[in-house]
Amino acid sequence: MVSSDYPEYGYTVTIRLEYPNKIGMLGMITTTVGENEADITAVDLVRTRGKRIVRDLTIGVMNMEHGQRVARALRKAGARIVAFTDPSFLVHTGGKIEMHTRTPVENHRDLSQVYTPGVGRVASYIGANPESVWSLTSKANTVAVVSDGTAVLGLGDIGPEAALPVMEGKAILFKELADVDAWPICLDTTDSDQIVDTVKALAVGFGGINLEDISAPRCFEIEERLKEELDIPVFHDDQHGTAVVVTAALINALKIVNKDIGQLRAVMTGAGASGVATTRMLVAAGLRDIIVFDRQGAIHRDRGDIEGNAGKMWLAENTNPRNFAGDIRAGLNDADLFIGLSGPGVIEPEDLARMNSDGIVFALANPDPEVSPEEAHRYVRVVATGRSDYPNQINNALCFPGLFRGVLDVRARTINEDMKLAAAQALAAVVSNRELSEENIIPSLFNSRVVTAVSRAVSKAALRTGVARRSRSHTGEHMPDLSPLAH
Amino acid sequence: MVSSDYPEYGYTVTIRLEYPNKIGMLGMITTTVGENEADITAVDLVRTRGKRIVRDLTIGVMNMEHGQRVARALRKAGARIVAFTDPSFLVHTGGKIEMHTRTPVENHRDLSQVYTPGVGRVASYIGANPESVWSLTSKANTVAVVSDGTAVLGLGDIGPEAALPVMEGKAILFKELADVDAWPICLDTTDSDQIVDTVKALAVGFGGINLEDISAPRCFEIEERLKEELDIPVFHDDQHGTAVVVTAALINALKIVNKDIGQLRAVMTGAGASGVATTRMLVAAGLRDIIVFDRQGAIHRDRGDIEGNAGKMWLAENTNPRNFAGDIRAGLNDADLFIGLSGPGVIEPEDLARMNSDGIVFALANPDPEVSPEEAHRYVRVVATGRSDYPNQINNALCFPGLFRGVLDVRARTINEDMKLAAAQALAAVVSNRELSEENIIPSLFNSRVVTAVSRAVSKAALRTGVARRSRSHTGEHMPDLSPLAH
Repeated sequence: MVSSDYPEYGYTVTIRLEYPNKIGMLGMITTTVGENEADITAVDLVRTRGKRIVRDLTIGVMNMEHGQRVARALRKAGARIVAFTDPSFLVHTGGKIEMHTRTPVENHRDLSQVYTPGVGRVASYIGANPESVWSLTSKANTVAVVSDGTAVLGLGDIGPEAALPVMEGKAILFKELADVDAWPICLDTTDSDQIVDTVKALAVGFGGINLEDISAPRCFEIEERLKEELDIPVFHDDQHGTAVVVTAALINALKIVNKDIGQLRAVMTGAGASGVATTRMLVAAGLRDIIVFDRQGAIHRDRGDIEGNAGKMWLAENTNPRNFAGDIRAGLNDADLFIGLSGPGVIEPEDLARMNSDGIVFALANPDPEVSPEEAHRYVRVVATGRSDYPNQINNALCFPGLFRGVLDVRARTINEDMKLAAAQALAAVVSNRELSEENIIPSLFNSRVVTAVSRAVSKAALRTGVARRSRSHTGEHMPDLSPLAH
Repeated sequence: MVSSDYPEYGYTVTIRLEYPNKIGMLGMITTTVGENEADITAVDLVRTRGKRIVRDLTIGVMNMEHGQRVARALRKAGARIVAFTDPSFLVHTGGKIEMHTRTPVENHRDLSQVYTPGVGRVASYIGANPESVWSLTSKANTVAVVSDGTAVLGLGDIGPEAALPVMEGKAILFKELADVDAWPICLDTTDSDQIVDTVKALAVGFGGINLEDISAPRCFEIEERLKEELDIPVFHDDQHGTAVVVTAALINALKIVNKDIGQLRAVMTGAGASGVATTRMLVAAGLRDIIVFDRQGAIHRDRGDIEGNAGKMWLAENTNPRNFAGDIRAGLNDADLFIGLSGPGVIEPEDLARMNSDGIVFALANPDPEVSPEEAHRYVRVVATGRSDYPNQINNALCFPGLFRGVLDVRARTINEDMKLAAAQALAAVVSNRELSEENIIPSLFNSRVVTAVSRAVSKAALRTGVARRSRSHTGEHMPDLSPLAH
């Protein structure tokens, strides 16, 4: 087995083994791993203790169950399993982020500038000139990543402690991709009023709020109220990040199949935060015929069970013009586009045969898509997923770093529809017509042009729509002018 | 004038000048600065524009008014003042802190560990094992520095925006002195209930809460309630930081004057957060006879105007055993110790003549002490201030970095009286008997032994009193053991 047999996204486990220190044992261990179709990536000696030896064996596996199978085989072969772990845990140990000082403090003179008495003069100045908080503090480059832990990844309501490593990961993407200083704020409450009050109270020190992994329908109300009451951008990434990247991918996919968005028949599974927001954005972009399915079936004007869910009510009123009430299989008849924002198994691959020619499938459930890309390719022309191991990865991280870079650069007051559409168009345009193909409708996360293109487009749209506090050309900071004091 | 005429804590201003580019002008400018008793520390060319030249002149001055006087003189001498600023402002421009990533993210493999899918496994694990949030996230090394901006430095209620640079400065001290990752949280509310609710909601991601610059008497109730309701340490630095450092300084000062704390007569001006907390700590340490003065006079059992102020009520019931009701001058009769936690001008230097022999004066108002150290030295034996430009600087930063290092190291649930007393004793003990003198009762902020000594003592006291989650000897983190999965 060589490493390349395993895609680099594959799971890795580290097994700490103790076994008799005698000739042939290590060979038997490596043979056992190979026989179980796993791939040794590292063998580290931990210690020898008399006639016993302890080693860490790091192996590439297909999934956690596969790793467990290998461990059981090793135990059968005579090794004691001291510990069984996952390198992701090692990366997380001690946390993934820290705070850094931008200016050294090595003596009393430094201290007298960053702290008292120097800081007192700066604080007084901000007190008298509130807008200067943008230039004299870290506010202008700092975003709070706020979650209550109720809809974390595909894991659901796992609570705010468990959400913390996810928010740290998000903060890392902000920093590494767009040099935005994000800090995770996990909230120990699921009460909408209290979340709104808390975020309003702490927003002072931040230039933007990224809401994350808050379950529907509370997320709609929370975002709406915070947008109204705060003078900094509030962005629920699960909704709008997905909407922007799906819209970008669709813009490019339509160029390939040479269809017009206004003529498209679309079907979506999933009417949660991302489903509702994506549909709204696509409808705003000209899509007329889309049917959205939740677990109970198609959402249409006569559904009596969606009262109180503002998102689904909006869908009932603004989508499904033919008032279709059948199942998803029938819904796919003559469809041009299928978007899955739900989970695996909601459709069978052969259902896609019902679609129009030159079909487009975005199967975005993670880690297991609604339909496997290999199968989907037998029926449709363009396939995208949320995974990094297939072409066309539709990943929110293509949007939020550049989007926030763009709003922070012009100190925007909000993120409006124009700005989101500008982000989608800019993201689509990163793929040139020459580069565009069925397998390349959306750029890679590590394409350095993405953040620049998205941030510029968002800044421009903010300026054009009058929600920017300053122009982007304002590079660097002026020396704060205390001239009046000198007169 | 040479630089050393100005103490290094002195103010500095930068004046941007535009003047005719002709021979003799620069000489005239430097002469003007010298004539006005200021000290040029740097001259930078900004640009020449035709027959005009623009330069930045950085000068040491005694205070801001002095800087303004120099600027006016330069204008009289023929220069145009383009801008007048303070290098503290330049240090603050763009903010003083940022977020850093502890692990690189350069490709999909890195990303798959810090973010999905790897982070999902870590999040699930924390969901099932809540205590693991301490080892698998940044919580264990992170402190929130929380303020509502109502009692900032000597500036009072300047609001949360203006408090932000002060909290950033505090965060820098945490990081530089004790490698604690502190993040400022400024709150746009002064309502005690809302502050308590907000801090409770956001505490999940933090290993401790440092309350800062919240005005009395609200600060007492807010701290008390948060201590009760949270399982991480909550520490109002203005109260307890001051109390710890004053207690440490007093321990050493008493060694010099060879007096016993139980026999001491003490007088304090200032009954705000720091005054009340310091008195409580000194009384707990054995001080019996202390009279505390607020703006209305001595606090005694018959004061009718302090109802509703829990701090002052405590003072009325637990201090002033002789029920003294006179003024501060009379209060100083036969006193051994004066502690000022108020403001300049509350006593006259000659009032100190009324004190006992071998008197001790801690004049801690900042930047202007209750009485000048030079004057005080004529009447008493030991003098300390809050300033870095005199011997014996009593600075909270001697306590809070090491104290939080100590509580985070053992993941303490709270900070109790034993831990604060241990911090004070350890801080005092950093000054060896050989080093101890009238001018050296407390170590310097940059003495590297301070944080180590304080943190060790605090950790030990936490373990001894049963509020630690783990022992300090637990160095490094175990490899998270998922062994059950392998069985």
